[in-house]
Amino acid sequence: MKEVLNFAKKNFNSYVDELKDYLRIPSVSTDPKFKNDVNKCADFVVTKLKDAGMKNVKKIKTEGNPLVYGEWLEAKGKPTILIYGHYDVQPADPYELWDNDPFEPVIKDGKIYARGADDNKGQNLIHIKGVEAYLKVHGELPVNVKFLIEGEEEAGGESIEKFIKDKKNKKLLKCDAVLISDTSMYAPNIPTITYGLRGLAYLEVHVTGPNRDLHSGSFGGAINNPANELARMIAKLHDKRNRITIPGFYDDVLKLTKKEKENFASLKFSDKKMAREYGVRELWGEKGYSTLERLWTRPTLDVNGIYGGYTGEGAKTVLPSKAVAKISMRLVPNQDPKKIARMFKKYIKEIAPKSVKVDVIDLHGGRPALIPLNDPYLQAAARATSKVFGRKTVYTREGGSIPIVVDFMEQLKAPVILMGFGLETDDIHSPNEHFPLNNFERGIYSSIHFFDEVAKMK
Amino acid sequence: MKEVLNFAKKNFNSYVDELKDYLRIPSVSTDPKFKNDVNKCADFVVTKLKDAGMKNVKKIKTEGNPLVYGEWLEAKGKPTILIYGHYDVQPADPYELWDNDPFEPVIKDGKIYARGADDNKGQNLIHIKGVEAYLKVHGELPVNVKFLIEGEEEAGGESIEKFIKDKKNKKLLKCDAVLISDTSMYAPNIPTITYGLRGLAYLEVHVTGPNRDLHSGSFGGAINNPANELARMIAKLHDKRNRITIPGFYDDVLKLTKKEKENFASLKFSDKKMAREYGVRELWGEKGYSTLERLWTRPTLDVNGIYGGYTGEGAKTVLPSKAVAKISMRLVPNQDPKKIARMFKKYIKEIAPKSVKVDVIDLHGGRPALIPLNDPYLQAAARATSKVFGRKTVYTREGGSIPIVVDFMEQLKAPVILMGFGLETDDIHSPNEHFPLNNFERGIYSSIHFFDEVAKMK
Repeated sequence: MKEVLNFAKKNFNSYVDELKDYLRIPSVSTDPKFKNDVNKCADFVVTKLKDAGMKNVKKIKTEGNPLVYGEWLEAKGKPTILIYGHYDVQPADPYELWDNDPFEPVIKDGKIYARGADDNKGQNLIHIKGVEAYLKVHGELPVNVKFLIEGEEEAGGESIEKFIKDKKNKKLLKCDAVLISDTSMYAPNIPTITYGLRGLAYLEVHVTGPNRDLHSGSFGGAINNPANELARMIAKLHDKRNRITIPGFYDDVLKLTKKEKENFASLKFSDKKMAREYGVRELWGEKGYSTLERLWTRPTLDVNGIYGGYTGEGAKTVLPSKAVAKISMRLVPNQDPKKIARMFKKYIKEIAPKSVKVDVIDLHGGRPALIPLNDPYLQAAARATSKVFGRKTVYTREGGSIPIVVDFMEQLKAPVILMGFGLETDDIHSPNEHFPLNNFERGIYSSIHFFDEVAKMK
Repeated sequence: MKEVLNFAKKNFNSYVDELKDYLRIPSVSTDPKFKNDVNKCADFVVTKLKDAGMKNVKKIKTEGNPLVYGEWLEAKGKPTILIYGHYDVQPADPYELWDNDPFEPVIKDGKIYARGADDNKGQNLIHIKGVEAYLKVHGELPVNVKFLIEGEEEAGGESIEKFIKDKKNKKLLKCDAVLISDTSMYAPNIPTITYGLRGLAYLEVHVTGPNRDLHSGSFGGAINNPANELARMIAKLHDKRNRITIPGFYDDVLKLTKKEKENFASLKFSDKKMAREYGVRELWGEKGYSTLERLWTRPTLDVNGIYGGYTGEGAKTVLPSKAVAKISMRLVPNQDPKKIARMFKKYIKEIAPKSVKVDVIDLHGGRPALIPLNDPYLQAAARATSKVFGRKTVYTREGGSIPIVVDFMEQLKAPVILMGFGLETDDIHSPNEHFPLNNFERGIYSSIHFFDEVAKMK
């Protein structure tokens, strides 16, 4: 193990060069004009996996962008870790806001700047290099490893979802745990394991009043205005304590444990700092919970978009025929998005007066995820990162949703370990995305330690 | 008088031909490409006024489109009536929805189809022909008459507003009453005088939350969502009886008189018919008032436009930085739009929580208008129309606002008599605008009777 770490340390500069090569390929999956680059990038990953010593490396065709698979399965009787990542990146637009060409990486103040530096090329190369170091030094890994790197994460990830759900692939993907580095650390230098994600139910509410736009002078006060009514309906969805009023909404919500509450409190989250950062005078949310508790463990309901009537410059005295709101609810374990969507529809129709017509469209949903804190693989990852960073690993949850995590958990019946090395300040999806090289480096060491910790598990 | 009516009857066919010529000029004031036609149309009105026997006929230059003025002031000791109308028209788009060329009038089933047929060429030509018939038969009018026909009514009417407010023009415009035919009759064959209009206060509310759009997963439940908050604020603007909750809002509202209540009730307005026509299951409004009472005599508050966040296709999980609503209030005598706008601003800021920032922009306002039912000119108009239509004239108010009416009342200190001959079903501002020729004809007779009735006033 020590030799592996030393080897990785000695070779770190060349790993950075390889990361640069990886970042030079503009593998933007949302724009068809980069299709060739996306393919080239899949080939690059194939080469890296082969160079690392993985076996059975292959590009797997899909209806969309290829998946890249590789395995090393010679650690008899030992657990199998499936490592997931994605080689595609977000578009780099607007280019003019970048200080360098987004696809010509630049190192400044110990950070590498390029599109995909953090999300996710830097973070997935970590494990390829971890595995490589191990194999180069010992000729073998202490555990079995599979890689599955996709090319559509930023574009909906449909192909990998189908692939995972296809029974034909169950054997290929069989594993004891899934390892993903695609999340952030709680703060710089604080090793972090993310063990919970919120789910989602996203719906669109159409409120129709009169069968055409009317003059608000000639009809105001006689015909209900669907924009006013939609506002009233939205207002009714929260009570005075900012709790969601849909009957039964909280029935399945898992209570926070005392240990979690203590964990979160120990993170010393600053409401003031967050308020300052986002330019608000005070934070907001469900009464009776701290901000981290609200963000990570409590469901929410947000209007993501609203429109109706005249939205151009100046004044137009229209009583609109229709108003629409896109409304999503973040869900927490054990809420079921389908059940919640049904409850939402029922309630919203109940609170609508007879003077308007309400239609609700289901846009999409995703389950929340929770990995037990005592899961042995999660604990192995916590020990690994703790050793590398020299301090106690913290356990966080996330307010957002990563649908693939739930797919892995449900289809492979394996825990998903979110061992992220990004920082919230890395500007992923924004101009000047970057990744601290010492996180890249400590990530590789963490990867090596993780294999070792898993091998030592009984 | 009888001779005048007979003369008009005999010449009615040629009046229809003149209306056709008037309608052939595409005097669209909102589109600069019709600038020449607008000018041509002003010249047409000049010719018509001269042909009718008016004196001192002139085109008055403005910063916008010309006004047309003409007068006949030889009825010594008799009242002076200022007749207002507009020669400009709404755009005819979309052309493909017209059954005929909108600027090539067609007569079908006793109605003349063309843009401007009702609004307002047909209705203002009525009075030019009424005056002409009188002068052709008797060589004189029983009262003094001034015409002021503008060319920007459909485009904001700024020039005439300036002209009326300019002290230099006070003498030119001095009159005892203003006569306007630019409104509708309550129903076909029911002679109608409109004696009240609602005013308007139109504002735009900007609610700002975070300083940029945020991810609703990462921030939902911690940072207030301005779209949700705007909805809550809008909801708070009405109570359960659908009354507006702004403190002091109703303080200046003039109470309905018993006579008005009886008048409105006698009109036998059908809620069911209105609901069916506009495709709603039931009407809506302030409790305790009939629909006509609500529309004509009670203030309202309507969202005319609302937007915020993602409004495209599908789902985007954004917690928007900003949400905006355009909100207008229809006002009734004696509410003051400026005072109401101040109250609105104060209240909306009061109900906004600290977690968002609220800015309110004043877009525009207009005073409500009310002409006393016992005004002698109004009564003269009622007698005139009653004689022509052979039944009792009804008195209506309107839910909308006509700013020029209030300008006339305030600047000229004269009552404004709204003697309209249009029908709600004439499709003004829409494809296939039309005007019943028998309303055109009865309008001319009513005009003649009106001069006569005014002359007989003591």
